Amino acid sequence: MDLKRILIVSGTHGNEINPVWAINQFKKQFKTIDKNIEYEFIIGNPLAYERGCRYIDNDLNRSFNSINKTFDNSIYEINRANTLVEKFGVNGSEPCEIAIDLHTTTANMGTSIVIYGRRRKDFCLAALLQHKFGLPIYLHEKDKKQTGFLVEAWPCGLVIEIGSVAQNYYDPKIINKFLVIISSLRDEINKLKNNQIKLPKGLVVHIHQGSIDYPRETNGNINALIHPKRINQDWKPIKMGDPLFMDVLGNTKVYTGQNTIWPVFIGEVAYKEKNIAMSYTKKEVINISNLICEEFFS
Amino acid sequence: MDLKRILIVSGTHGNEINPVWAINQFKKQFKTIDKNIEYEFIIGNPLAYERGCRYIDNDLNRSFNSINKTFDNSIYEINRANTLVEKFGVNGSEPCEIAIDLHTTTANMGTSIVIYGRRRKDFCLAALLQHKFGLPIYLHEKDKKQTGFLVEAWPCGLVIEIGSVAQNYYDPKIINKFLVIISSLRDEINKLKNNQIKLPKGLVVHIHQGSIDYPRETNGNINALIHPKRINQDWKPIKMGDPLFMDVLGNTKVYTGQNTIWPVFIGEVAYKEKNIAMSYTKKEVINISNLICEEFFS
Repeated sequence: MDLKRILIVSGTHGNEINPVWAINQFKKQFKTIDKNIEYEFIIGNPLAYERGCRYIDNDLNRSFNSINKTFDNSIYEINRANTLVEKFGVNGSEPCEIAIDLHTTTANMGTSIVIYGRRRKDFCLAALLQHKFGLPIYLHEKDKKQTGFLVEAWPCGLVIEIGSVAQNYYDPKIINKFLVIISSLRDEINKLKNNQIKLPKGLVVHIHQGSIDYPRETNGNINALIHPKRINQDWKPIKMGDPLFMDVLGNTKVYTGQNTIWPVFIGEVAYKEKNIAMSYTKKEVINISNLICEEFFS
Repeated sequence: MDLKRILIVSGTHGNEINPVWAINQFKKQFKTIDKNIEYEFIIGNPLAYERGCRYIDNDLNRSFNSINKTFDNSIYEINRANTLVEKFGVNGSEPCEIAIDLHTTTANMGTSIVIYGRRRKDFCLAALLQHKFGLPIYLHEKDKKQTGFLVEAWPCGLVIEIGSVAQNYYDPKIINKFLVIISSLRDEINKLKNNQIKLPKGLVVHIHQGSIDYPRETNGNINALIHPKRINQDWKPIKMGDPLFMDVLGNTKVYTGQNTIWPVFIGEVAYKEKNIAMSYTKKEVINISNLICEEFFS
């Protein structure tokens, strides 16, 4: 089999520093090439990382929809997205077939996998990680306000998202969680190739349905916070009548929808500017019994 | 007795948002004047608060040493410090006798009191809060690199510091802790005035001794993190040979000093730029039996 190259990106958001440290540690302790799989390590947004901010001009992880289009040359992240694809894209000068983008969240989500849309190869990789680590999968799709994610610019790719951890705060436990995944990913892919793993027929996924903003005053100021009973309760179902927000007078705003929803990114600091207090999903089992993971190696 | 006015400042650092919310809640639920004590509420750094950053040009809580001196008019926080003292200083247009400055930290310090230098009135107020809530007191003094704190510009004042909480993240538990202190402070002062409280003879304080930076490469990059056994262990003593940092190879750097130290602000995100991985203190009991808290009301 030919060498397979996996692009491992940390610091796509400059203030998510634990994955960057985990990768530094990995590079010192493990081989870059093993089992015919080579890891290519890069910092997604080096300037933002240096400054300790999420981005300079534009969220890099929303900047990959301008690839190969006319774009505004003056925006740092649009330039950076193009540079990365020109170099590490499948047709780039140092091509990679898979992209793994490492992120942290201030929400209490634990470790999860985020995939974008329903690509067969992504399902295969996600199934592998769910099988190994029992991780929840957040399937992000059909959200016109949120597009241009990094991994979409590669034929296969996903995000590893770990929280809760504050921006710019080093947490050894979070670093260790990244290390565990990165250091066992190649072994798992290799096992799959050699038919040493049988993946389950069903993939449990949380499918993105939409987002809920904070209640706001007419001037845009937030006037109610995530309810004390809701904070940190990511992945736990919300039913009609359950509390969502609480205002300064102690009044509760409840969920009024008919359908049970499963929230993610509750109170994520970086999403306030995107008018998102939490996103919500529905839980489904996707039949993957027809998924031929051998194509993953083609 | 004349009306006593207490200045309550939140948002001195614009990304410490929980105290701001706590004060909004307090104003809706409690009276501003009670027991001849009036609270004056202000946001310390409104522009930084609006932008969600610690400061614009200069840390506001290091900008009060330029008061009444020739100062650089172009620095937002120097201007702001002067404006606040001109308005709310003891000789200002709306004078306050006491300043309480509300802060949060990303370090796992719980709730604590910070005082600057050894002013008798500060000891009195700190003793009151230690007596009521059992809070640790961090006495900051003799650090030439860290000067110009807000409360020093008033004849009496202290910081309430609560953590751990991420910058720009609303945490109902943290908000509640601020509310408890602000809503009972007047009662406590009033009890003291009426001799309903007898303060202890000794005040337990952690006296600032210095700060320890991260181990760094020659280019300034951090090359070892707070040791996993040290992270979140604020206030817990460190003895010679105890671990401090761990580098990417897993090597441990230990504390080599002779004296036992008590660390604070371990891993505080905002202090990385100040080259502080943690500060350290010695623990002492200060005799306050001669402290005449009646002068507090003069």
